[in-house]
Amino acid sequence: MKKIRAAVIGATGYTGRDTIEILLSHRFAEVTYLTASSDDSVPASSMHPRLTGRCGLDIEPLNFDKLADTADAALCCLPHKVSMGFVPQMLEKGLKVVDFSADYRIKDVEVYQEHYAPHTDKDNIARAVYGLPELYRSELKGADLAANPGCFPTGSILGIAPLLNSQVIDPSDICVSAVSGATGAGKKPSPGLHFPNHNENIRPYKIGSHRHMPEIEQICAAVAGDEVNVLFQPHIGSFDRGIISSIYTRPVKDLSQAELEDLFKDFYECEPFVQVLDSPPEVKNVANTNYCHIYPAAVKGRIAVFTAIDNLVKGASGQAVQNMNIMFGIDEKEGLL
Amino acid sequence: MKKIRAAVIGATGYTGRDTIEILLSHRFAEVTYLTASSDDSVPASSMHPRLTGRCGLDIEPLNFDKLADTADAALCCLPHKVSMGFVPQMLEKGLKVVDFSADYRIKDVEVYQEHYAPHTDKDNIARAVYGLPELYRSELKGADLAANPGCFPTGSILGIAPLLNSQVIDPSDICVSAVSGATGAGKKPSPGLHFPNHNENIRPYKIGSHRHMPEIEQICAAVAGDEVNVLFQPHIGSFDRGIISSIYTRPVKDLSQAELEDLFKDFYECEPFVQVLDSPPEVKNVANTNYCHIYPAAVKGRIAVFTAIDNLVKGASGQAVQNMNIMFGIDEKEGLL
Amino acid sequence: MKKIRAAVIGATGYTGRDTIEILLSHRFAEVTYLTASSDDSVPASSMHPRLTGRCGLDIEPLNFDKLADTADAALCCLPHKVSMGFVPQMLEKGLKVVDFSADYRIKDVEVYQEHYAPHTDKDNIARAVYGLPELYRSELKGADLAANPGCFPTGSILGIAPLLNSQVIDPSDICVSAVSGATGAGKKPSPGLHFPNHNENIRPYKIGSHRHMPEIEQICAAVAGDEVNVLFQPHIGSFDRGIISSIYTRPVKDLSQAELEDLFKDFYECEPFVQVLDSPPEVKNVANTNYCHIYPAAVKGRIAVFTAIDNLVKGASGQAVQNMNIMFGIDEKEGLL
Amino acid sequence: MKKIRAAVIGATGYTGRDTIEILLSHRFAEVTYLTASSDDSVPASSMHPRLTGRCGLDIEPLNFDKLADTADAALCCLPHKVSMGFVPQMLEKGLKVVDFSADYRIKDVEVYQEHYAPHTDKDNIARAVYGLPELYRSELKGADLAANPGCFPTGSILGIAPLLNSQVIDPSDICVSAVSGATGAGKKPSPGLHFPNHNENIRPYKIGSHRHMPEIEQICAAVAGDEVNVLFQPHIGSFDRGIISSIYTRPVKDLSQAELEDLFKDFYECEPFVQVLDSPPEVKNVANTNYCHIYPAAVKGRIAVFTAIDNLVKGASGQAVQNMNIMFGIDEKEGLL
Repeated sequence: MKKIRAAVIGATGYTGRDTIEILLSHRFAEVTYLTASSDDSVPASSMHPRLTGRCGLDIEPLNFDKLADTADAALCCLPHKVSMGFVPQMLEKGLKVVDFSADYRIKDVEVYQEHYAPHTDKDNIARAVYGLPELYRSELKGADLAANPGCFPTGSILGIAPLLNSQVIDPSDICVSAVSGATGAGKKPSPGLHFPNHNENIRPYKIGSHRHMPEIEQICAAVAGDEVNVLFQPHIGSFDRGIISSIYTRPVKDLSQAELEDLFKDFYECEPFVQVLDSPPEVKNVANTNYCHIYPAAVKGRIAVFTAIDNLVKGASGQAVQNMNIMFGIDEKEGLL
Repeated sequence: MKKIRAAVIGATGYTGRDTIEILLSHRFAEVTYLTASSDDSVPASSMHPRLTGRCGLDIEPLNFDKLADTADAALCCLPHKVSMGFVPQMLEKGLKVVDFSADYRIKDVEVYQEHYAPHTDKDNIARAVYGLPELYRSELKGADLAANPGCFPTGSILGIAPLLNSQVIDPSDICVSAVSGATGAGKKPSPGLHFPNHNENIRPYKIGSHRHMPEIEQICAAVAGDEVNVLFQPHIGSFDRGIISSIYTRPVKDLSQAELEDLFKDFYECEPFVQVLDSPPEVKNVANTNYCHIYPAAVKGRIAVFTAIDNLVKGASGQAVQNMNIMFGIDEKEGLL
Repeated sequence: MKKIRAAVIGATGYTGRDTIEILLSHRFAEVTYLTASSDDSVPASSMHPRLTGRCGLDIEPLNFDKLADTADAALCCLPHKVSMGFVPQMLEKGLKVVDFSADYRIKDVEVYQEHYAPHTDKDNIARAVYGLPELYRSELKGADLAANPGCFPTGSILGIAPLLNSQVIDPSDICVSAVSGATGAGKKPSPGLHFPNHNENIRPYKIGSHRHMPEIEQICAAVAGDEVNVLFQPHIGSFDRGIISSIYTRPVKDLSQAELEDLFKDFYECEPFVQVLDSPPEVKNVANTNYCHIYPAAVKGRIAVFTAIDNLVKGASGQAVQNMNIMFGIDEKEGLL
Repeated sequence: MKKIRAAVIGATGYTGRDTIEILLSHRFAEVTYLTASSDDSVPASSMHPRLTGRCGLDIEPLNFDKLADTADAALCCLPHKVSMGFVPQMLEKGLKVVDFSADYRIKDVEVYQEHYAPHTDKDNIARAVYGLPELYRSELKGADLAANPGCFPTGSILGIAPLLNSQVIDPSDICVSAVSGATGAGKKPSPGLHFPNHNENIRPYKIGSHRHMPEIEQICAAVAGDEVNVLFQPHIGSFDRGIISSIYTRPVKDLSQAELEDLFKDFYECEPFVQVLDSPPEVKNVANTNYCHIYPAAVKGRIAVFTAIDNLVKGASGQAVQNMNIMFGIDEKEGLL
């Protein structure tokens, strides 16, 4: 079998690095091209010393012809608002694209524009499939553009969807209090993430206004077939990897703890990467894996759901490889064991 | 002025150690007696190497006569269910007592017994004043027994009380999602707190059943003059000190962000240790201090409040010294600058 | 090609867990049998929640017949002094064994017995090959028993060997000051590793007496062809994974920085997992990999060498898989990309 | 008694903040003036949110007249090379100055200039007393300029001085391998200290060339009355506060472990802040204190000494207050209990 040739576009950040590392042990894909916005080429191993001796490629300025010659798939790790300037040409060149940015996630362009910027590639929004395989696997199979979900939306939606799908909660009363590790904030140094400031710390941020909120609501509304109101509140903690999402909802029918667990186990029965636990999840148990651990609980007249993922793997690079695998028709789990 | 002679009962744990350290720089109090349940005396500095050269006392088996001879105040750091076996004799000997356990916090003995154990000192429950100076300062002034609040209740109540007091929220719809540092779990080694298991981790625990819940509800109900329903959900994070409490409530009247901030600033105007901020709090900014930082926010039709305290200081030893200061009629801030 | 069937003996600890995880992505080996000293079987995923959905095996009491029936290789993660009670029967049953303990590392049985315990399987000591492929690859190819090196010796020896091999330093004046992450202390909770005690900490331990010292000296002496004196001093830091070894030696001939780097690059030219850097190594850059990063430096009349490894991977489970690969004649790097 | 009025010059960094916090509980001193190089005044509490409600001063542009009017002591936290541009005028205005920079530590101006920059205030170098009270207390009593030691030199010198003073080691063969917490690198964000890069990490830096080396050698030579050669190698770890210095020396006479401990205990017998332990020190046990914990050990023909300090307290702000106390003739321990 011929290997999928994968390009990582925007390979200098954490998601680019993790994508490269995941693909190192992928049996049916290989990294063939790495790009960044810089004018100069640098060895991948000087940008990411972890890759020393493991990846001999340079990270080069993006050249679309070279991209077309060397790659079948583009894993596009460019930032929000930047990605939509490059994705159209990747598609034109015939590549299948998994885009990590928010640019193709929000179907309602006005909502996108309210939270991000004027959209410059509206035509391709409809073409993009939201890259959460647990909800959109069949659409992803034929897609050439997957909009890889945000890390917070991944953790939130996987916890909320089974409840909305079964119509057992009030869709207008959902609160998500989530804590992410610091890699979620990206690679650029800032006072807030300076080690002596952030170590031994935890703090809420973007109070009531995080732009992951509309993304969560859009997908939840699609599952519910109804309007959904989610208060999403992120926090950032002093650990590297992982998101714990604590989701508080209001049931509209009585469910015992056993019924609740069954509801989740049924919903995710065939999912390789979602595990419904009998006890609370911990981010450490999913760190460096593509797994999502979920624990639902009936508590004091509410339904609480706790989910844990690695923000850089199931929340970004791992899910992107999972999407790529699906789009190319190979075993979804490949590279992600 | 004669110094308050303070005994620390149960001096081997983290709260005992922090109490000793706080009193080292107290101008009007001195530690005179340290006890533990062991049969043997050990130097305080061998139990707590931080105290080497700073505290020459031994930690001794508790002797009530010696206690009466050497101390005016007992800062009782014994565990829940143990404390009530010792506090009565301390009071009989004429000491003023600040008790760190839950044994005298819950006024409804049935609620206590449901969450803890049969109560063996019911007579003194009514005598105890809940040691949250921001709500009970005047009662504390004449008290000889203060029930020092739990760390989670301190962070929760300080965030909820102004809203209930002004009757601007629905008292039946309050959700507190809190994250504590690991010192909150105490000094006894366990698999869950073994460094390689807990480092780089965060996890919810005691799902829907934490025994701090009735304590929070009791005080909140007193403030509200009405029944209150609080869903309190703790998490434990991989840092030493601090609690961030994220409180989600449902307003019953419209409040602008400015009105909301004013409400909190008015409520805490004269409080030395509660600071209402204009931006989200961080546990790091209150670590090793007796301060509580609060930020309320009007968000998406809800009112969210975020509070940060040090669980061992404002959540335990610092608040105990604050209570002792009030009970002895000296400057409340002494030792706590 | 038929897959190597690998048993992990002593699968409940960190090295057992990491060995299982590494083998999940190994193309030519699969885990077939997991054992522990307990009387009962438990799912691997309940012992190691990271393995939920990834490994369906139970961890069972060791049965040698079942071992012989199900496995070709035994990766024996039993503790020092315990391992030698089980390895003989594994060899008798025809398995190839990689033993993680110190039991077969020390060739001089008296030295072993001074640091550990009376040896109960002296016959097999000579049969065992020290499992550091960079020095003993050819012997490992035909071996049926590899004594997997200690984590500290791996980091130390890889930094010292090139210098001793070239006879450019005084073999009697070598000092290794090493800092390990906390997983090196194993899985058993203890006061010293209780999170609130160990977090934000670093401390030396086993002052001047660590039992890794004779192991380091034995291998270094073999390389030097002479007696070697190494002062090895370990420290434990508040991070999960990795060892930084700072090695201070006395040169017996003048070497420029460039000559020194060339000496190391020549020595490790063909080694897949040893990378000689142009700048100081960091444990983070080798965490979760089987790589060793090395930086030698000519400083103030001394030669200093800095090495970084992951104590659980190149220092344990990864190196064991590397040894297994060599012993079975397959690509040494398999499973370790 | 009139309180010492203390100005903190350069109050925006970590040492400035810690100096302010220490002085909050000082009975005989108060902070009266805070300055920074900015053109605008900002509340100290907006620069350091920890100070909210605790310090009402602004941090202002430095005005020497105002300084002279408001302060008796200047605690000058300006950076190396900057400080010497301001200290002369502070002295002229009649203030006693404790300078945190290296500018007045190195007596040999050529050595200073080799490691830092051309010296612009050579006249005052001789006037400055090296602010290590354990060695220079009597000189400090009459001084008006104290050169507060570097953090690494403090930890190193306190471990080496007793040995050199007793002439029991070879002064030409001293190696210090030290690990500092991240606050030692200052407040300015950089890629190396970005949380996701530095967390879970440890790395050596400034290989063989750290400018603290000549400072250590100068003071050690003064103690030894002889030339001294120290190889000083710093590392930076992923914790906030503290330095562990592991010092490896070569004895010139035989000393038992007991004799060695006695030597240190005698040397530091009257020192309030230096504690000679019977077991290895830990940085956690001195964090947020002005104490130095020391453990000397006779090992394998060497003498090893391990010291622990808090780099921001005994290594900076605490030692500065200790020096101020001595210079003003008050109890050296004031504010530092």
